[in-house]
Amino acid sequence: MPKLCRSNNRDLNQLREIKLTPGIAPYASGSVLAEFGQTKVICAVTVDKKVPRWMIQQGVSGGWITAEYSMLPYSTLDRKIRDSARGRIEGRTMEIQRLIGRSLRAVANLKKLPGLSLWIDCDVLQADGGTRTAAITGAYTAAQLAVNQLLVTGNLKENPFRDSIAAVSAGIYCGQEILDLDYVEDRDAAADFNIVMTGSGEFVEVQGSGEEATFNRAQLDSLLDLARKGIAELTVLQNRTIEEELQKISSADGETIK
Amino acid sequence: MPKLCRSNNRDLNQLREIKLTPGIAPYASGSVLAEFGQTKVICAVTVDKKVPRWMIQQGVSGGWITAEYSMLPYSTLDRKIRDSARGRIEGRTMEIQRLIGRSLRAVANLKKLPGLSLWIDCDVLQADGGTRTAAITGAYTAAQLAVNQLLVTGNLKENPFRDSIAAVSAGIYCGQEILDLDYVEDRDAAADFNIVMTGSGEFVEVQGSGEEATFNRAQLDSLLDLARKGIAELTVLQNRTIEEELQKISSADGETIK
Amino acid sequence: MPKLCRSNNRDLNQLREIKLTPGIAPYASGSVLAEFGQTKVICAVTVDKKVPRWMIQQGVSGGWITAEYSMLPYSTLDRKIRDSARGRIEGRTMEIQRLIGRSLRAVANLKKLPGLSLWIDCDVLQADGGTRTAAITGAYTAAQLAVNQLLVTGNLKENPFRDSIAAVSAGIYCGQEILDLDYVEDRDAAADFNIVMTGSGEFVEVQGSGEEATFNRAQLDSLLDLARKGIAELTVLQNRTIEEELQKISSADGETIK
Amino acid sequence: MPKLCRSNNRDLNQLREIKLTPGIAPYASGSVLAEFGQTKVICAVTVDKKVPRWMIQQGVSGGWITAEYSMLPYSTLDRKIRDSARGRIEGRTMEIQRLIGRSLRAVANLKKLPGLSLWIDCDVLQADGGTRTAAITGAYTAAQLAVNQLLVTGNLKENPFRDSIAAVSAGIYCGQEILDLDYVEDRDAAADFNIVMTGSGEFVEVQGSGEEATFNRAQLDSLLDLARKGIAELTVLQNRTIEEELQKISSADGETIK
Amino acid sequence: MPKLCRSNNRDLNQLREIKLTPGIAPYASGSVLAEFGQTKVICAVTVDKKVPRWMIQQGVSGGWITAEYSMLPYSTLDRKIRDSARGRIEGRTMEIQRLIGRSLRAVANLKKLPGLSLWIDCDVLQADGGTRTAAITGAYTAAQLAVNQLLVTGNLKENPFRDSIAAVSAGIYCGQEILDLDYVEDRDAAADFNIVMTGSGEFVEVQGSGEEATFNRAQLDSLLDLARKGIAELTVLQNRTIEEELQKISSADGETIK
Amino acid sequence: MPKLCRSNNRDLNQLREIKLTPGIAPYASGSVLAEFGQTKVICAVTVDKKVPRWMIQQGVSGGWITAEYSMLPYSTLDRKIRDSARGRIEGRTMEIQRLIGRSLRAVANLKKLPGLSLWIDCDVLQADGGTRTAAITGAYTAAQLAVNQLLVTGNLKENPFRDSIAAVSAGIYCGQEILDLDYVEDRDAAADFNIVMTGSGEFVEVQGSGEEATFNRAQLDSLLDLARKGIAELTVLQNRTIEEELQKISSADGETIK
Repeated sequence: MPKLCRSNNRDLNQLREIKLTPGIAPYASGSVLAEFGQTKVICAVTVDKKVPRWMIQQGVSGGWITAEYSMLPYSTLDRKIRDSARGRIEGRTMEIQRLIGRSLRAVANLKKLPGLSLWIDCDVLQADGGTRTAAITGAYTAAQLAVNQLLVTGNLKENPFRDSIAAVSAGIYCGQEILDLDYVEDRDAAADFNIVMTGSGEFVEVQGSGEEATFNRAQLDSLLDLARKGIAELTVLQNRTIEEELQKISSADGETIK
Repeated sequence: MPKLCRSNNRDLNQLREIKLTPGIAPYASGSVLAEFGQTKVICAVTVDKKVPRWMIQQGVSGGWITAEYSMLPYSTLDRKIRDSARGRIEGRTMEIQRLIGRSLRAVANLKKLPGLSLWIDCDVLQADGGTRTAAITGAYTAAQLAVNQLLVTGNLKENPFRDSIAAVSAGIYCGQEILDLDYVEDRDAAADFNIVMTGSGEFVEVQGSGEEATFNRAQLDSLLDLARKGIAELTVLQNRTIEEELQKISSADGETIK
Repeated sequence: MPKLCRSNNRDLNQLREIKLTPGIAPYASGSVLAEFGQTKVICAVTVDKKVPRWMIQQGVSGGWITAEYSMLPYSTLDRKIRDSARGRIEGRTMEIQRLIGRSLRAVANLKKLPGLSLWIDCDVLQADGGTRTAAITGAYTAAQLAVNQLLVTGNLKENPFRDSIAAVSAGIYCGQEILDLDYVEDRDAAADFNIVMTGSGEFVEVQGSGEEATFNRAQLDSLLDLARKGIAELTVLQNRTIEEELQKISSADGETIK
Repeated sequence: MPKLCRSNNRDLNQLREIKLTPGIAPYASGSVLAEFGQTKVICAVTVDKKVPRWMIQQGVSGGWITAEYSMLPYSTLDRKIRDSARGRIEGRTMEIQRLIGRSLRAVANLKKLPGLSLWIDCDVLQADGGTRTAAITGAYTAAQLAVNQLLVTGNLKENPFRDSIAAVSAGIYCGQEILDLDYVEDRDAAADFNIVMTGSGEFVEVQGSGEEATFNRAQLDSLLDLARKGIAELTVLQNRTIEEELQKISSADGETIK
Repeated sequence: MPKLCRSNNRDLNQLREIKLTPGIAPYASGSVLAEFGQTKVICAVTVDKKVPRWMIQQGVSGGWITAEYSMLPYSTLDRKIRDSARGRIEGRTMEIQRLIGRSLRAVANLKKLPGLSLWIDCDVLQADGGTRTAAITGAYTAAQLAVNQLLVTGNLKENPFRDSIAAVSAGIYCGQEILDLDYVEDRDAAADFNIVMTGSGEFVEVQGSGEEATFNRAQLDSLLDLARKGIAELTVLQNRTIEEELQKISSADGETIK
Repeated sequence: MPKLCRSNNRDLNQLREIKLTPGIAPYASGSVLAEFGQTKVICAVTVDKKVPRWMIQQGVSGGWITAEYSMLPYSTLDRKIRDSARGRIEGRTMEIQRLIGRSLRAVANLKKLPGLSLWIDCDVLQADGGTRTAAITGAYTAAQLAVNQLLVTGNLKENPFRDSIAAVSAGIYCGQEILDLDYVEDRDAAADFNIVMTGSGEFVEVQGSGEEATFNRAQLDSLLDLARKGIAELTVLQNRTIEEELQKISSADGETIK
């Protein structure tokens, strides 16, 4: 496969170096530092023993999962002004945090989180393209770590997640379809997709747009194929990370969780 | 084609009744009332003889296109609180207005709008599902009406739009793929896509998500096919509306624009 | 009567062409498009089955009537920035919406709206002077339409309105007193009054000010006389509109409301 | 004249005890403590050597006069939350500060304030009804004191005020027309007017409304007569206060201003 | 003691002229105008018959004391923009109001304020340095006046204050340690301390910083000595003021409080 | 020295385990992860090639140093709501970020930062008491790393810092004076000081308060002694960290900076 003008000499269908490092935020119930190349996102999940007011008002049983996303001011080469200093949350920030929450809820059975809210916080430490896909991939991992913690401690009866999710970008760059765009590739791409899929290969979210350009059906099909390949690799890494952590807390408790 | 459990007895691949009525806001340079069945959106385009500050600061030439979207309080069966009373713009509102602006810019050559900003305002008068697709379809129509006005009056040399755009939704409902969901269908859909395409059949935006559910590649392919059919029909109506208005202003001026 | 320098060649004591068109917002309980010449205001009334928190806290029985007013961005020749984008409600907007609500409450027996709130929304589609008087005139009409709907459906026992209200402006322009100022007349007026009166000829609100000028008692008296004449004409049109709509819903229900 | 049910045993056409005490805020260019009975308002005028941005942008020459009004938290029997703590300015506050500014501008020739802005700040120390009329009456007095200071120091060539202004309330209470309502009278009044007039007896502002009631033309006429009497008395006190202060600064400078 | 370059010819360890004048805000339960030379602060205490929500939620018994601080716009030589107009509270304002509240709570037994909140409002009428120390000194005085009122009327059983507090500044200016800095001294000081102490000579708060400079331990010791002397003098004045007011309300009630 | 009731079995005058790890935020000019026991703060310094508007308006030459502080939502055992979600910055946050900025400016010669602003961002990853002292200690370290980077690359001629600074807390707990309080000690302390000192032993800031308690001069003296000991140890660690990083960038550049 040719790598025409790709930055970092990657193959067109090659992910950046991916790392998922648990424990970055010790007070959270579950946390990972998710790295997609130079992109680094702190993903931390805290458990709140109450549900949103609208659930109570509308008599909805079960629990809730919600997300907040933020870019730390020093995550970009030019310092980024904080939302709190600006006094309002940017539209892009809102879009991303809604996407993260919706994606996790798509694979969760909220009835199995009775009276609990999972807060998914994603804070970008370094931004080199694909922060939302790293955030979703890390968010699921951290959420499953938190759930395992709740299961081990008996605060939860069943795993609310029926499948894993991961996310990756794909786009048209230099006239060719590529996987997992970094900042430079993303900036100059003719089209850019973010795709969220389950570990079993179903779609959760497909979001793509031409950047002052358009794209045809054949190109769209290629991008979806690339995403499927990337997601499969991310899923392997997520499962391994979750499994390793589970070993630790299980052996610490002197028992195994099935 | 079976119409299993479809509301309003439509065929699975059938649009609602579509209307584009020009002139709803006489002080705007171009305006239409866009109706997709019971969904009614005022789309009005005003021209500002200046460009955003960031274009000046970054030395970007040409013009700009931006959009604002709002649901009027009486557009829903339960009154919707105004963003201005709530003190902040909802995440959903932000997402939609960013989508409208991005979609129009994808088919515009901004260099052909020297020193001008087009403001696309979309205010929902009645909301019965698909307000964003009606808004985009109406927004392009109103924008082209405004551009024609500018061309007739000599305030613009060339048409900045290289193609038309329209938008439609498609989703999975009662286990079948359907086109142009109304409120009830959208509320209960297992998956919901909004697709923006050009008059020549290229994609501009593809946004779809499972609603606490997932979907597979075959389903996604069917939804894209449905959208293509719907967009083609919307394009015919847009072109006819624009042409008729052009006849009026041309004859009023006693000349023809090519 | 001379029409010295009056725009549109109207008589000094002549209203602009007035229209009240019901049904502009189908999801509202009552709605009209109120037109005073080029000024067009959407007036829509929605019913909320609860009362404001302060009424509960203070143990006040009955219901409530409140109003919100807004100028749509394309209602003026230069696009008007939205309150939601500006992040705060303008002082002028607040004054007008407080005036509308207060005026309607002045002729309502709130005890006859048990547990209900009427929300009066007035959105200006086109602004050519006198938007607040068109808004009040339309707001009462829409509110009575909504009340009739509630009476027909048995959700209300008695009509809470003991009288109708309408509003009109009068001012000093070119040294003469005139009725119902349009934008140009209002901009250049030496004094400008907005007067709200009942159908039976009582005053509800009198608000007038010199525009960097002052005025004497004789002038004030003339302005009040003009307003009385204009209000009487508006009242006839309101009653006719309400009566016609009542015929429709009554015949639809196969019965008459007295 | 009967004083049926009037609080404080005042005659129907009698003002409360009025005091205008200069010098309450020594760093202001002019200041008075304006007292209408128990109502006490600090009125302070500061001079800013620049004009609002819109005057520069629109090329308007001369100066500007603007007002801000606030109720101190301890001015009412139940503590009043600060606008800054609430995060937004109340509608009532906005109405009043706009009224104060507009009233002062109505008698000013802004061309005679070249490049200067007068800031009129009115802070209510104790609120017993009629705070806006005390504020306007005090504001004019403080503004004229500030102007005299500017004239004495040579920072101004001519007096921009062509007349004085004062304000008073009148209303219908216990079925009779009364002057200068205190809190209890205002709370229970059937109608309530605030009237701003010049020292020479012209009207500047007339604002009146029925409080969930209406009123007729004869009542309105009586209220205007009462206001004229009250304003005349306030004007005498304003002029005496301004004259006494002028004596002080003139003798301090060893010269007289004409 | 030399008075090298001290403004107003004061001794290095000499307070400005101090005045505490009760009754400035008659609707407050206790109020004083606190003057430290040209610095004048209105201190008013109002009593709210409820406690903050967090106390109820956390099951904390007793009462609460909180403070708000504000500089009136005309308190400075250049007009100061209001926090409400700016839309947010300044950092400096927050620091000061937190300091005032914390200082008063340090000497209060909140259990002896069952179900009550004391609101301490400090509004600066004229600012010539040391507004926060004048505010604290006046705030305690006003709070004790309010408490005495509550004791006399039987609304409180015991005095919640176990000691008095007062505050004063000390700093390094012209290379020497001085007491109670005015604006000019404060602006040019190399270091500036604000010290809050009890009437019995204990510390409540010590806050000091070098102004783009540093200071050593010996200097710090001298500043603490100066503060002790100043606080002792302020305490005498506070006690005399409180005693005189107590005489008045006691004799008015025809009884003595022990 | 007895360690009566001290958590973690530390000596009364013993710091927690301190770590300063450079490079946590690679896009910043200088960054460290500062750890005081379980308290972990990301300190990152970015350089902006412009100065605040007020410096330009007032004609102040040189550069500027400013700080922002934030607690990440998962830094506390109960999730902390973001300032951006709350819509305003907390008073405590403001106090701390003002303290950090002021402390760094106290040892900087701003003239030696011509046209540059240093932004000091401190984000708390884990909060176990003393976040502000860890933030200041880390902030200086990161700032010196950034300055060294600017010196090596020739973007700065001279080091603007004339001394180092570090910060530590000291307080009264269980009736004894202790150094560097963790969360539990801080929560239950009778008095709590935060002290900022230079590497050469001068004071920059002293802030201490009784927590619903007071303290005497002898106690204050002991706390200052403890702080001096702690600061000296922190200074050694800071210098070592800065020196090691300087070696790396110097050797990378093949030269030494003096």
